[in-house]
Amino acid sequence: MTDGQSPMSAAQQSPATVAELTTPALVIDKPTFDANCAAMDAVLPGLKLRPHVKAFKSTDLARQLADAGHTAFCAATVRELEGMAAAGLDHDLLLANQTLDAPRLAALSAQADVTIAIDSDETLQAAIDGGVKKVLIDVEVGMPRCGCSPEEAPRLAEKARAAGIDVRGVMGYEGHLMMVMDRESKARKVERAMAILLEAHEKVGGDVVSGGGTGTFDINTWVTEIQAGSYVVSDTHYDQLDSPFKQAMSVVATVISVNSKGWAVVDAGLKAFGLDHGEPTWPDGTLMFCSDEHSTLAQRADDLKLSVGDRVMLRPAHVDPTVARHEQFWVTDGDTIVDRWAIDLRHW
Amino acid sequence: MTDGQSPMSAAQQSPATVAELTTPALVIDKPTFDANCAAMDAVLPGLKLRPHVKAFKSTDLARQLADAGHTAFCAATVRELEGMAAAGLDHDLLLANQTLDAPRLAALSAQADVTIAIDSDETLQAAIDGGVKKVLIDVEVGMPRCGCSPEEAPRLAEKARAAGIDVRGVMGYEGHLMMVMDRESKARKVERAMAILLEAHEKVGGDVVSGGGTGTFDINTWVTEIQAGSYVVSDTHYDQLDSPFKQAMSVVATVISVNSKGWAVVDAGLKAFGLDHGEPTWPDGTLMFCSDEHSTLAQRADDLKLSVGDRVMLRPAHVDPTVARHEQFWVTDGDTIVDRWAIDLRHW
Repeated sequence: MTDGQSPMSAAQQSPATVAELTTPALVIDKPTFDANCAAMDAVLPGLKLRPHVKAFKSTDLARQLADAGHTAFCAATVRELEGMAAAGLDHDLLLANQTLDAPRLAALSAQADVTIAIDSDETLQAAIDGGVKKVLIDVEVGMPRCGCSPEEAPRLAEKARAAGIDVRGVMGYEGHLMMVMDRESKARKVERAMAILLEAHEKVGGDVVSGGGTGTFDINTWVTEIQAGSYVVSDTHYDQLDSPFKQAMSVVATVISVNSKGWAVVDAGLKAFGLDHGEPTWPDGTLMFCSDEHSTLAQRADDLKLSVGDRVMLRPAHVDPTVARHEQFWVTDGDTIVDRWAIDLRHW
Repeated sequence: MTDGQSPMSAAQQSPATVAELTTPALVIDKPTFDANCAAMDAVLPGLKLRPHVKAFKSTDLARQLADAGHTAFCAATVRELEGMAAAGLDHDLLLANQTLDAPRLAALSAQADVTIAIDSDETLQAAIDGGVKKVLIDVEVGMPRCGCSPEEAPRLAEKARAAGIDVRGVMGYEGHLMMVMDRESKARKVERAMAILLEAHEKVGGDVVSGGGTGTFDINTWVTEIQAGSYVVSDTHYDQLDSPFKQAMSVVATVISVNSKGWAVVDAGLKAFGLDHGEPTWPDGTLMFCSDEHSTLAQRADDLKLSVGDRVMLRPAHVDPTVARHEQFWVTDGDTIVDRWAIDLRHW
């Protein structure tokens, strides 16, 4: 038994139906997943989309997207890049984030086609020390996170090129605008953010202007490629937006206790979810609160009546950190398990 | 490479100092950990404490407690019990939770000394089907979660005994009272909750009255044993209480970007923490917000001045779900890594 691996029996590892799953279990409804992918492909075919593996952390899932023509990926951690490279999904891998880990970059760049984002002399130096051949200049476009100013960008680009590095262009993430509800207001704000990025691009040069996310996939028309990942399964947070993406991911839980005072308890708690965007939703009633390994559900007269042993589906509020808590996606079509996708890109 | 395992080099797996850690990394300050353990032992020596492995999910850490005389453990998941049994820490294992997974109980009870909590006919039946020899009757003492009523408890106990099962006593968790700040008010409320448990115990019999947690460890004097785990490392949430337990656990992060507008960005984000009790704390300044793989720190004039490459320590708000996001504890004494404790009891 290795760290973090469950000593499951062969039968438990090969369940045929949702009823046979050890709970809590993360499931993806395959028809909804396929519809989400088709909706994205209709707007952003092939290399117009650079799927962001941070959302789903699975080379098995990434391969589904690569098979549909999205062969260039981006990632948030070196660990994600390492896993994608090991899986052969390294046609054009972008670390859309900063790192100072030159030793791991060196191992990566020796075996895979890797581009990394840089926004400072220090991150450029890590790229040089790591033998990285290609970079994007990361530009801050209004969200208080990584990225240099458009004035700083050309200096960094020049310094990188002087070191023999191919500066492919720029990236900038308008993450602060993902959840703007009004579409017209959102378009104006994204345009202003992208004006900053395009100003930097004019000075930096290169073919690539990378940005965006699931929340701006069809609004951000100023970039050459959109970085998006959450759309594949969506969540209750993104579901607030008017978008074609439907919730495809749930956590299956088992009712382990029913109290005559009016509540039922299931075996999926806050350790099975990311709670930064709020608690999960129980579509058939009201979730009262989550504990570590329990969620308490209200059993009102107008709710579905639950008995011990029943199974319920809870909907996560945030895809990315929820996925990072599980070992695999169980891929379902109705009650049948049709596939298992390992979540193999977790940790750091 | 197995699922969820990072393909780290040998050097990365054996860092000698905090500066050599791949970040984000979970560290435990050993002197503070030892002081927390000593403070607990002074009040609850040996079997007066039943350490709850759900908090730390590590057989390496559990062994430290067993070596100090706390040889009876409790757990929240079957997975935790399986790992404890595989590690030989199965002198007296309690599943302080309900389960219907009779096949896994059968495998467990064949190899380990296992007691499980039951609160219904269904969970009793799972115990019978799983060949479990010992149970506690779980009684609801005011928190809307698992547990039967004190009236229901003797019926279940009788039914269990009729099936040849040793009913060792009762358990009840006053989780809703952990964070009551006023000590006198807390004592009165805990007494009322425990009166319910003692009423059930009088009808059920047996030697064990199990309850409590880190927040009531020296106030709940009505039980025969306290279930507590968070005390070993504590967190910013428990730190609000007047208790002898100090924060021993941090996440080490690297500054990857500094913006002249007044913020710095580190590489530990919400995927490195449980955020259900709020965002982590940066003791040297203000944490603005967490993204998936970043936290943005305010760089005010009165804050510590950060440069790219600096390392910072962030303090988690909630031990249990934070631990469950990491593969190991790096045990430190000052800047030296003195041990690595695998977090091997995660998942389900």
